[in-house]
Amino acid sequence: MEKMKEKILSDGIVLPGGILQVGGFLNQLIDTTFMAEVGKEVDRLFRDDKPTKLLTIEASGIGIAVAAGMTMGLPVLFAKKQRTTNMSGDVYTAKVHSFTHNIDNIAIVSSKYLDKNDRILIIDDFLAHGCAFAGLIEIIKEAGAELVGCCAAIEKGFQGGGDKLRAQGYRVESLAIIDEMSEDEIRFR
Amino acid sequence: MEKMKEKILSDGIVLPGGILQVGGFLNQLIDTTFMAEVGKEVDRLFRDDKPTKLLTIEASGIGIAVAAGMTMGLPVLFAKKQRTTNMSGDVYTAKVHSFTHNIDNIAIVSSKYLDKNDRILIIDDFLAHGCAFAGLIEIIKEAGAELVGCCAAIEKGFQGGGDKLRAQGYRVESLAIIDEMSEDEIRFR
Repeated sequence: MEKMKEKILSDGIVLPGGILQVGGFLNQLIDTTFMAEVGKEVDRLFRDDKPTKLLTIEASGIGIAVAAGMTMGLPVLFAKKQRTTNMSGDVYTAKVHSFTHNIDNIAIVSSKYLDKNDRILIIDDFLAHGCAFAGLIEIIKEAGAELVGCCAAIEKGFQGGGDKLRAQGYRVESLAIIDEMSEDEIRFR
Repeated sequence: MEKMKEKILSDGIVLPGGILQVGGFLNQLIDTTFMAEVGKEVDRLFRDDKPTKLLTIEASGIGIAVAAGMTMGLPVLFAKKQRTTNMSGDVYTAKVHSFTHNIDNIAIVSSKYLDKNDRILIIDDFLAHGCAFAGLIEIIKEAGAELVGCCAAIEKGFQGGGDKLRAQGYRVESLAIIDEMSEDEIRFR
């Protein structure tokens, strides 16, 4: 998506350690006008696969998922990272390592919101090492639901998670793939 | 909002300890069709106050805030609960106690996304003891921005936070206010 690349180039800040800061439009301040365009692009990419639900993980995936869900007319389910008192009954869980924060999280989804009749599109703001996507795929399998594909606003291609998922046969569409980045330059695939 | 009450009555589950579970449409599985109606209602309530941004706190506030922001054509800013490596520079912070999870969180907002030219509408899924709203109001004051009002999808009136904010002179609009609830009955104000 050309406009995603433009946004990254105009607003993104590269920090040491492979961190790309896009808080100005994607994951602190959410530019809803741009997000409506993002939603249309996600819809164009996956409409024919007839997803029934979008699945993401809290917190920063919720913004793009709800924006896309509103554009596509689809409900959005998000995995929590801890079991809270307002969550009861059976759950699906998967371990998700966060390289950004260097911790292991648990992704948790109530089993009543996901079942074998669902066709799931996973959506997240970033795809880096692919741990969040892998965890959510595990949950989809556990539920017996069908995975129609994976979509990230920004894929850090140099961290390999996207290509690993593609090699496993999953359909992965990222709106921008960064193959190299430094403080001076961002190179897209 | 009549339809919010209907949704609570049809989908809400009351758990011991004053917990209302609405994961089926608001904060696990997000019903985007209903959320579009919620956005229109929030727009109707606050349009004349000309907010420039919606402010919420991760994670469960993001869904309703992005839905309303997309309907209202306004950007959404969300406070994080911990400082992450993809957040640099000056920040505003406030302490926020969570009665639901019985812990103290810190609400953090990058100072570059909030300033004295902003007219802020705070929006969240729940208003109970009001701690999240109070923390976000503190951040708005710290930034020198103007608060146009507070909006919650569901106010637990019996926990007093909304009326405390109203007594302090803030405009608080909740789409449904619950004054009493038990496993058998939910009574709205």
